[in-house]
Amino acid sequence: MATIALEAPYLLFLGSEKSSTYAKTAAGLAHWRPELCMGQLRLATEAVDLGLPDYDVVTAAANGAKTLVIGTAVIGGAISDAWIDVLVEALHAGLDVAAGVHTRLSSIDRLVEAASQSGRKLVDVRVPPPHIPVGTGVKRSGKRLLTVGTDCALGKKYTALALERAMKGRGFSVDFRATGQTGIMIAGSGIPIDAVVADFVSGAAEMVSPANDEDHWDVIEGQGSVFHPGYSAVSVGLLVGSQPDAFVVCTEAGRTHIEGWPSFELPSIGAVIERTLAIGRQVNPAIRCIGISANTSRLSELERTEYLAQLSADYGLPAVDPIALGVGPIVDFLDED
Amino acid sequence: MATIALEAPYLLFLGSEKSSTYAKTAAGLAHWRPELCMGQLRLATEAVDLGLPDYDVVTAAANGAKTLVIGTAVIGGAISDAWIDVLVEALHAGLDVAAGVHTRLSSIDRLVEAASQSGRKLVDVRVPPPHIPVGTGVKRSGKRLLTVGTDCALGKKYTALALERAMKGRGFSVDFRATGQTGIMIAGSGIPIDAVVADFVSGAAEMVSPANDEDHWDVIEGQGSVFHPGYSAVSVGLLVGSQPDAFVVCTEAGRTHIEGWPSFELPSIGAVIERTLAIGRQVNPAIRCIGISANTSRLSELERTEYLAQLSADYGLPAVDPIALGVGPIVDFLDED
Repeated sequence: MATIALEAPYLLFLGSEKSSTYAKTAAGLAHWRPELCMGQLRLATEAVDLGLPDYDVVTAAANGAKTLVIGTAVIGGAISDAWIDVLVEALHAGLDVAAGVHTRLSSIDRLVEAASQSGRKLVDVRVPPPHIPVGTGVKRSGKRLLTVGTDCALGKKYTALALERAMKGRGFSVDFRATGQTGIMIAGSGIPIDAVVADFVSGAAEMVSPANDEDHWDVIEGQGSVFHPGYSAVSVGLLVGSQPDAFVVCTEAGRTHIEGWPSFELPSIGAVIERTLAIGRQVNPAIRCIGISANTSRLSELERTEYLAQLSADYGLPAVDPIALGVGPIVDFLDED
Repeated sequence: MATIALEAPYLLFLGSEKSSTYAKTAAGLAHWRPELCMGQLRLATEAVDLGLPDYDVVTAAANGAKTLVIGTAVIGGAISDAWIDVLVEALHAGLDVAAGVHTRLSSIDRLVEAASQSGRKLVDVRVPPPHIPVGTGVKRSGKRLLTVGTDCALGKKYTALALERAMKGRGFSVDFRATGQTGIMIAGSGIPIDAVVADFVSGAAEMVSPANDEDHWDVIEGQGSVFHPGYSAVSVGLLVGSQPDAFVVCTEAGRTHIEGWPSFELPSIGAVIERTLAIGRQVNPAIRCIGISANTSRLSELERTEYLAQLSADYGLPAVDPIALGVGPIVDFLDED
């Protein structure tokens, strides 16, 4: 059994994408894993520039690149016909091709043929690996931290990556563990947990953070919310399989309702803590909340300071904005133990 | 969007199966839906006899049968080579073929070819229908009752079917709604909820019990347990999508641990009630527990009486053994409202 895996170093493919919004995956890779990103491949001079060296596929391969990573996502998630020639060329030059868009690489005949001829791999990071077992619930060695949320899309991946970086800076033995497509590209491995068949969600989560040294931390990218009317099965299965020792609640200041589910109020941070503890204790009695991570981009600087101080006082925990201020106080809290 | 559906009446296929244990699906159909079972097809005289008229496929089709249902499951879940000729013949005679074994009918070339030639359907009840949406959480009209459990395999399907039958007898407008393969065969429709991709589990549950008349009850077959170390994602997603107004907790007297997970104690009935209420209130504030259904087959008659009386006193709810004594007291409780 293995999780999805990408081989580094990467050549980041940006196509002709002019909008940095749609080049988020490539930008995330360059930001969080600069050491793995050898260069970029742009099909137009006005395409997004990540400040990396420009390569064509042949030169990149000759210089040691292993995987061309499609780092843009257009609406609808298709793979542009204009890209296919370049991707075929990349495979023949000796690169794997990885993508997280909706269209599967393996559904495009020319790519399958080129991969077969060149002996290279097509890596669809939205497709779970085969043979995922049912979760065992058996306690694994090593420490685990899970980011959980009041909702989707409010910084669980960012918070986990920021915690990994800050903990590494303090000398922790630590790895970010990915459960979503962009996270998998950044980590180089992982399982897209929301695409796993329901019976195997906890088992997939167990594979994502395998047994490790007793003092090693896995910082696991959370998904959804245990209170989400659409996605709670994913969040609960991930929580049960992760067996976290610690968790951080992620939220967004000013968000009042579940995004896209306007009849559902955002659950309170206290309710998320309580429910996460209740479920988490089933597999790890030692679980505890160690902090709150809030996206405060809608607030002024003064409002942010007051908001975070209030959260910290209300819950007796460090409260941070990981983008504006970093996650230092949470690592302090963990470090003081 | 549609759930899986089987067309009645059925010809129950028993092959050469001599063990009634492995003919459970056929026996369940004959027990719960005698009006849909036109006859049986046995390939050997010593095969299990359900007391139905024996037919060959041609005579059955000529007499109005619509679907040949494979009602046996051998270990490993394969479809025996010895059956293929008969199944091909059934398709050419004008019958659909339905199965819930592990091997997909659609993976067997000769069956696919015969179905295509005859214009009949292969129905794999373990395969969820395509295009299941994400759950909306929007409240649907009609009433819903979900059977939940302290564990797997302790009577959630049986209890739901017994409740449907008893409620029908009292004049309720009521339908059993299936979420597992055997249940789907019995109901004639449904979705195998544990085979749905995690993101869509609640959405699938919403499809299983669609909006209905205000006084209509759906009695929904539960799955797993919200405390299960392997399957809680399934149970939580089903609970959230079902929006039950009422639930019955199913358990087994004498079971001390989660079956197959020996390091996990069986959760208490009280804990299951509390957690089910907490999660269920997210989508239906009116949710309540209306009874306990216990498999007491390990107890003597005296022990059973005492055990059920104690449960009833402890929780202030009717407590029944659906097989030994029926579910009458739970329907009384519901009826008194």
